[in-house]
Amino acid sequence: MKRLLIAFAAAIFAVSLYAQTPKNVIYKFTEASDLNLIGKIHENTPNPYHRVDTVKYKGFTLSENRQVRSSAGLAVLFKTNSTVISVKTQYGWEYNAVNTMPIAYRGYDLYIKDGDKWLWAASGATKPEKGKDNLVLIKDMDNSMKECMLYLPIYTEVNSVKIGVQQDATIETMKSPFRHRIGIFGSSFTHGISTSRPGMSYPMQLMRWTGLQFLSLGCSGNCRMQPYFGKVLCDANIDALVLDSFSNPEAKVIEKRLFPFIEQIRKAHPDIPIIFQQTIYRERRNFNKSSDEIERAKQETAARLMKQACKKYKNVYFIQTNATDQLHETSVDGTHPSDYGYTLWAKSIQKPLLKILKKHGIK
Amino acid sequence: MKRLLIAFAAAIFAVSLYAQTPKNVIYKFTEASDLNLIGKIHENTPNPYHRVDTVKYKGFTLSENRQVRSSAGLAVLFKTNSTVISVKTQYGWEYNAVNTMPIAYRGYDLYIKDGDKWLWAASGATKPEKGKDNLVLIKDMDNSMKECMLYLPIYTEVNSVKIGVQQDATIETMKSPFRHRIGIFGSSFTHGISTSRPGMSYPMQLMRWTGLQFLSLGCSGNCRMQPYFGKVLCDANIDALVLDSFSNPEAKVIEKRLFPFIEQIRKAHPDIPIIFQQTIYRERRNFNKSSDEIERAKQETAARLMKQACKKYKNVYFIQTNATDQLHETSVDGTHPSDYGYTLWAKSIQKPLLKILKKHGIK
Repeated sequence: MKRLLIAFAAAIFAVSLYAQTPKNVIYKFTEASDLNLIGKIHENTPNPYHRVDTVKYKGFTLSENRQVRSSAGLAVLFKTNSTVISVKTQYGWEYNAVNTMPIAYRGYDLYIKDGDKWLWAASGATKPEKGKDNLVLIKDMDNSMKECMLYLPIYTEVNSVKIGVQQDATIETMKSPFRHRIGIFGSSFTHGISTSRPGMSYPMQLMRWTGLQFLSLGCSGNCRMQPYFGKVLCDANIDALVLDSFSNPEAKVIEKRLFPFIEQIRKAHPDIPIIFQQTIYRERRNFNKSSDEIERAKQETAARLMKQACKKYKNVYFIQTNATDQLHETSVDGTHPSDYGYTLWAKSIQKPLLKILKKHGIK
Repeated sequence: MKRLLIAFAAAIFAVSLYAQTPKNVIYKFTEASDLNLIGKIHENTPNPYHRVDTVKYKGFTLSENRQVRSSAGLAVLFKTNSTVISVKTQYGWEYNAVNTMPIAYRGYDLYIKDGDKWLWAASGATKPEKGKDNLVLIKDMDNSMKECMLYLPIYTEVNSVKIGVQQDATIETMKSPFRHRIGIFGSSFTHGISTSRPGMSYPMQLMRWTGLQFLSLGCSGNCRMQPYFGKVLCDANIDALVLDSFSNPEAKVIEKRLFPFIEQIRKAHPDIPIIFQQTIYRERRNFNKSSDEIERAKQETAARLMKQACKKYKNVYFIQTNATDQLHETSVDGTHPSDYGYTLWAKSIQKPLLKILKKHGIK
């Protein structure tokens, strides 16, 4: 009997800790796209949570198509005095993987303004079989008015994102404090694969630290400087472009595509800075000799060609990303950094990136 | 046609990167338990991958039962000159969660000795529907003899773990370089919830850094100083005991159980150091007022009672774990640290823990 009681108490406690479902709350829901949806590289897409209109833009593989329809890098800004914040999602295509936290690929990440900083407040995700549930992110807050930034799932299509607050609370749109429109086209690294939550990709960390707005076109397994991605970037309203384009293409693809890609972008955006990043050291190189050769060739080709490109083209730059090279413990799967690896990446590019942007009046 | 070719090339590349299935390899498989299985708090369990014999030990809730049958903290040591290492698992009970990487809860994490250090080599997991596949962890290594440590899944039951190497390669057991038998009983934190791979729990990080062997009885949602867990610890062959027992029980449970729990352990282990850790700051406290109160009460009660306990009982110690208190970015879900949070935890206790252990001849 005593053991039964202990087990019962433990179960109750577990529920109170994890489910976080406050009782007697009557919710009202607001569609996130009716508030301030930031981080979009193309501002008007028929589905507001898609990064690219895949009816208009063609050429994508099935995987690319799914990825540009995923809401990586998008966040909704709002103010509320509700003591509870929840979210109810209608999912479209759903991802699943062993090397990324479900909170990152199908979940939400909430920050609240604390003085002049964004302070982490809550994160969570429903399990796929419970996808339509009302996910209570946080409860038991005080009822002061708060400025909120809610990151959307990085690798799953959402057709509707309804933010729930108490029926008698206020929820209203919030003006973005983020400055400029800096496009960032990249691989799974830029996309945020292997992060634990949507706000931990390196562009999102940089955005919180600097107040500059990054518009992510990160696509896992991609950013191979394909012309059809180039077209998406040409049509984007951007002040600068940052690229992580040496992570996926093999050396000979880099060789073939780099200069035509720069020329394609330059035609549409004659003056903006185009800033390339070297690719990072992948931990699988530690013992896998073929990976080591492939990666070395990529990095060497990128370094050699970028030396030429920076002379040949105006306002083209090349920055390093070697913060994790000597650590050997920040990889999740041999390719993708953990949250901390991405933090170190963001830190390593912050200074050189800001220096270049400042030179172009972007600060 | 050109786009089709690009898509085709991209698909081939993706396969070569992620599947890592080398061609023409004929494998031979060795059961991990026939090699050197380390990290077991109870050395002889009918299923060698269970931490506790749940037929012999009773009183566990369903969740606790599943957890002590999971292989958290276990690793297999072997030597091989194979250029490929794979693993084939027969899963028993299978976990799933949104706040832990599947590589951690159902996957594997391989380190290889590099001089006097363990260097990360590979990690991975099959998807649940592919659970019986041969998972190729690494290929294309040189064929020198290597000392390998393969961490097992932290939160899933495994009934068989077969390590695959090339048929003509050598695989043999390896003597453990890890010293002593230090029991570590704790909550989800000690278990490694929200890590990205099995080797990133704080006890496993400490073990790699110090060469001391930690035997984990980490159980998510647990370590509430229950007498039936006490019995498991009393029957364990251990030189020291480390506890993370203030993370889950509420203040009044701590009050009720702490002294009887110490006395239970002390009866079975009259001289070993019993080292309690304070619980960490949980990021959900940033805005959730009720969590803040509950957590504050736990920490205050633990601090107050441990002051008494350290006087009342011989060789009982209390150490702090406040490395992440001011960071606010190392939480996955408001409760559990990310890999980096656990690294900081391990770093924060390393010095005081080693000092205490040394005093007791454990070094």
